[in-house]
Amino acid sequence: MSTLSMPTADAPVVPPGCLRFKALGIDTWQEHVIYMHPDSAICRSEGFAAQARVEVQIGQRSTIATLNLVGSELLEKHEVSLSAAAVDALMARPGDEVCVRHAPSLESLRALRAKIYGGHLDARQLHEIIADISNERYADVHIAAFLSACASGRMTIKETIDLTQAMVDSGERLQWDRAVVADKHCVGGLPGNRTSPIVVAICAAAGLLLPKTSSRAITSPAGTADMMETLTRVNLTAAELRCVVGQVGASLAWGGALSLSPADDVLIRVERALDVDSDAQLVASILSKKIAAGSTHVLIDVPVGPTAKVRSVEDLERLEMLLKRVAHAFGVQVLVVRTDGAQPVGRGIGPALEARDVLAVLERSPTAPFDLRERSLLLAGALLEFCGAAVAGTGLDMATGLLDSGAAWRKFEAICEAQGGLRIPGEAVFRRDVVAEQNGIVTNIDNRHLARIAKLAGAPMRQVAGVEMHVRLRDQVSVGQPLFTIHAQASGELEYSSAYALSHAVVGLSSTAVG
Amino acid sequence: MSTLSMPTADAPVVPPGCLRFKALGIDTWQEHVIYMHPDSAICRSEGFAAQARVEVQIGQRSTIATLNLVGSELLEKHEVSLSAAAVDALMARPGDEVCVRHAPSLESLRALRAKIYGGHLDARQLHEIIADISNERYADVHIAAFLSACASGRMTIKETIDLTQAMVDSGERLQWDRAVVADKHCVGGLPGNRTSPIVVAICAAAGLLLPKTSSRAITSPAGTADMMETLTRVNLTAAELRCVVGQVGASLAWGGALSLSPADDVLIRVERALDVDSDAQLVASILSKKIAAGSTHVLIDVPVGPTAKVRSVEDLERLEMLLKRVAHAFGVQVLVVRTDGAQPVGRGIGPALEARDVLAVLERSPTAPFDLRERSLLLAGALLEFCGAAVAGTGLDMATGLLDSGAAWRKFEAICEAQGGLRIPGEAVFRRDVVAEQNGIVTNIDNRHLARIAKLAGAPMRQVAGVEMHVRLRDQVSVGQPLFTIHAQASGELEYSSAYALSHAVVGLSSTAVG
Repeated sequence: MSTLSMPTADAPVVPPGCLRFKALGIDTWQEHVIYMHPDSAICRSEGFAAQARVEVQIGQRSTIATLNLVGSELLEKHEVSLSAAAVDALMARPGDEVCVRHAPSLESLRALRAKIYGGHLDARQLHEIIADISNERYADVHIAAFLSACASGRMTIKETIDLTQAMVDSGERLQWDRAVVADKHCVGGLPGNRTSPIVVAICAAAGLLLPKTSSRAITSPAGTADMMETLTRVNLTAAELRCVVGQVGASLAWGGALSLSPADDVLIRVERALDVDSDAQLVASILSKKIAAGSTHVLIDVPVGPTAKVRSVEDLERLEMLLKRVAHAFGVQVLVVRTDGAQPVGRGIGPALEARDVLAVLERSPTAPFDLRERSLLLAGALLEFCGAAVAGTGLDMATGLLDSGAAWRKFEAICEAQGGLRIPGEAVFRRDVVAEQNGIVTNIDNRHLARIAKLAGAPMRQVAGVEMHVRLRDQVSVGQPLFTIHAQASGELEYSSAYALSHAVVGLSSTAVG
Repeated sequence: MSTLSMPTADAPVVPPGCLRFKALGIDTWQEHVIYMHPDSAICRSEGFAAQARVEVQIGQRSTIATLNLVGSELLEKHEVSLSAAAVDALMARPGDEVCVRHAPSLESLRALRAKIYGGHLDARQLHEIIADISNERYADVHIAAFLSACASGRMTIKETIDLTQAMVDSGERLQWDRAVVADKHCVGGLPGNRTSPIVVAICAAAGLLLPKTSSRAITSPAGTADMMETLTRVNLTAAELRCVVGQVGASLAWGGALSLSPADDVLIRVERALDVDSDAQLVASILSKKIAAGSTHVLIDVPVGPTAKVRSVEDLERLEMLLKRVAHAFGVQVLVVRTDGAQPVGRGIGPALEARDVLAVLERSPTAPFDLRERSLLLAGALLEFCGAAVAGTGLDMATGLLDSGAAWRKFEAICEAQGGLRIPGEAVFRRDVVAEQNGIVTNIDNRHLARIAKLAGAPMRQVAGVEMHVRLRDQVSVGQPLFTIHAQASGELEYSSAYALSHAVVGLSSTAVG
C-alpha cells in the first residue's frame, strides 16, 4: 500500500480573507453567526454559501460560526458583522480586522456518526467529540444528534466514565486544601425543590467546606443558580470563589463562569431546546462538574414520583448504580438519598418565588413552607453524617439546632455578603388564579405540567415569573378556591401559560363532596 | 377526577402583534428567521427572547420562525424583517402587515422525547411528528434528535410502515391510468453511479411508463436531480410532469417541486448536515416518494462494497427484507438488485462530470465509460423483465438493442426537450491532479473519501465541481501518473479539497514494481 502526494510547485497560494468588522447588533442568543456580503472576494474565492460553517479570527481569538449572507446595503463587500455572542467571544470592535476561512474538517464527526449508527466510542473518540463541542466547533444539529444517540441506555459504563473524564478535561479544575470537600446536588424534576441553599448554610455553619457551584435550569423553570441570582451575585470568577470560600467556608455560585466542565454548558443549551436529559448525560454532567470543582463527598438528592424526573425505584437503582460506579472511577464518594417526588416542594416555582420560600425557612418565618424545611433538614443531617461532622444518628438533630438557633441564617447572609451583597427578589406585574371547578380532595398534582406552565409564564428567563401553589395532596378544596396563581412579567406570557393550564389536567380532584 | 377552569371575566385581551415588513436581505439558506427590535411593543408584551420560536403571519400565509433581535438602527420598533427563505414562504413585500405570536405548543415533541428515551411510536404519534416537520414547525435540533433517535435498528417494522404512511400523507399523490408504473432507485453511496437516466431512457423506449422523479444529493456529491439539472430543466410542477409523461412516457424530474412526501425534503436537509442516513429513514424516504408518485413496480439498485453505503451481504439482506415488508403494506412490488460497490462508476463524480458520462453512454461514444454502460444495461434488462415488458432471460438483450440502435438516446433527447430543452454542462475553472507517489497496482479505492473530496470541492452546490477518476481497481500506475483530478469553481474550495485528498488514503497502491 502507498500514500499519495500532490504537485505543489504550481499550487496557487490563497491569501487569508481579511475584512473589517461592522456592528449590526443582531442577537441570536448563544449561536455564533457571521454576516457577509455574497459578492465579497472571500465568499467568491472560497466558495462560501449560506449556512456554511467558517472559522472566524480576530487577533489571537477565533471561533467557528454559521455564515449568513447579507445581500442588501447593510454591508459593503469588505465588511463583516457578527452575532452578539460571537462579538463577545472574539471581543470584536468596529474596524477590527477579521480573518475568515473554511472551518477545519471535523474528524470527530466520524465518531459521532458511528455512535448514531449504534457503535461504541472509546476514550479518545469521546475526548475529541467533547473537545470540539466545548470549543463551539459543532453546529447545534450535531450536538442534538449526539445527545439523542447517547440517550436511553445506549452508553456503556465505560463510555459514561470516558465521557465524564472528557468533560472534566474540557475545562479548569479547582483544588482545596482539605481532606473532605462536601457537595450536594439534586437531579431535579421536582418543581420548587430548592433545598441546596438551606443545606449549604446549615452544613457550612457546622464547619464543613462547601464550595457549592450550581447550574442554571436545564429543563426546569429554575436552577439553583437562577434562584440565587435573585438574592445575590452568582457570576463569580475562580479567584472570587476561592476568596468567598476562604472567607466563609462555602459558596452558592453559578458554575458557568468558572469554566468547570464547559462542554456541559454547551450540551445543556441544546438539551434545554430538546427538553431531554438522559441517564448517561445526567451522570456525566453532575459528576464532571463535581470532580472539576474538587469535591470528595457528594450527596445526591433523587426525588422519585410518578411525574418527577425519576419515576420508579428501578429507575432510581439504575441511576444510583451508574452514579456510584462512575464516581468510584474518580475516587469520589457518592451518597444517594431518595426523597418524595409526588408533588412540588414549597410554594413557589420559578427563581424569585422559590427564593422567597428559601428566605422564609432560613429566617424561621412562621409561614415558611414546612415541607421545604423538613426536606432540607433531612438532607443536611445526612450530609453531616456522610462527611463525618456528626455521629451516625445525630445528623438531623444537629441540623435542626443549627437552623433554629439562627446559625444557618447568619451563615447564609455571610455567604451572600461575601458574594456581593444580599438583595430582595422582585414581584411579578401580571398574576392570574387558576381555581377549582368543583368541591373535592386533591388526589394528584402533575409536576411536569406545573413546570411547563411556569416556563410558559417566562421562568427562568424572567426571574419573577412562575407558579405559586396554594394546595397540596390530600387538601380539601371548594369550588372557586384558587389552586395556584400564575405570575408573569408580560401579558402575552400570562395568556400563553394560562391557555396551557386550562387545557391540561394539572391538579386532580376527587369528586367526593367536601363535608 | 375533575378538570379546571380559569376566570375569564377579567382576562386581558392581547391584541395580535402587527408590524411592517422591511427587507434586509439576509440569506440563512432554508432556515426561517425573523428579525425584530427588542424594544418593540410585541417583544415586550409577549416576552419574546432571542431564539424564541414564533408564528409569523402575512395575509393567509404563516410559518414558524426563529427570532433574532436587532438592537441597532437597522429596524424601527414597528418593523420586522425575515430571512430569504421566510420571505419566499410568506411572499413578503416591503410594507406588508406582519402578525407575530407565540408558536403553538407542539404536542408531538412529547412523542419525540419518548422515542429519544427508547420508546415505540404509534401511527398517530408518527403522523403528528411528520406533520409538524413538513409544516416547518420543528427547529433543526428537534429534527436532528428525531433522526438520531430513529437510527440503528431503533424502529420496528410497524413504525417504519407508519412513518412511510405519515410521509406519504404529508404531501400530494400522483395517479396514472396504467396497471404497471415502473420506477428505479439507487440507495446511493457509490460515487458516479448515475444509471437512472440511461435505464429510464431504455425502458421508456421499450414502452414502459416511467414517471421518474429524483431527489437532490443527501450525503453524496450529486443526486440524479442535481445531475439532470446540468442537462435540462428539472423543477417541474405536477401539471408539467403529467404533460411530459403523457407526451413521451417518461420523465427525469426533481421530486421536490411536486410536494411528494415533502416531509422527506425537510428531513434530508438535516440529514445532509449530519451526514447520516439510517435504514428506517432510508426505506421510508425511498418508498414514500415512490408511493406518492404512483409507482407499482420499483427496482432498487443496492451497491454493496467495503466503502459503499451498504457494506455487507447481511446489511443488504436486512435492507431488502425491510424494503419488501414495508412496500408490501402499500401494495407495491419491489425488486432489489445487488450491484458491485467496490469502486466508483464511470469517470465523473459531481453533477456536470457525471452528466458527461451519461451523455457519452447514450450517444454510444467510443470513449464512454464501459462500467456505466454495462451496469445500466443490466438494470434496464432486469426492470423490463420485472414489469413484463420482456420475457425472462431476454431483458438484457432487449436493453442492449434499444441502446445500440439509438432508440434510448432519441428517447432521452425527447424527455429533455419535453422538460424544457437539452443543454450541455459547463466545465470547472480550477483543476488539480492528484498523482501516484510510486509505481504499483491499484488495490483499493475509498468511495467515502472520494465523495468527501468532491463535496469539499463544491459539489453538488457548484455543478461543475467534483472529481474525475483516471484509474480503476487493478490498473497499473507509474509514479507521477495522475490518479484523479479535482475540479472546482473557487480556489478556496480547490485548496480545501486538495488538503483533504493529501491527508487521507484515497487510492491504495500495492508496492509491487510495475513491469
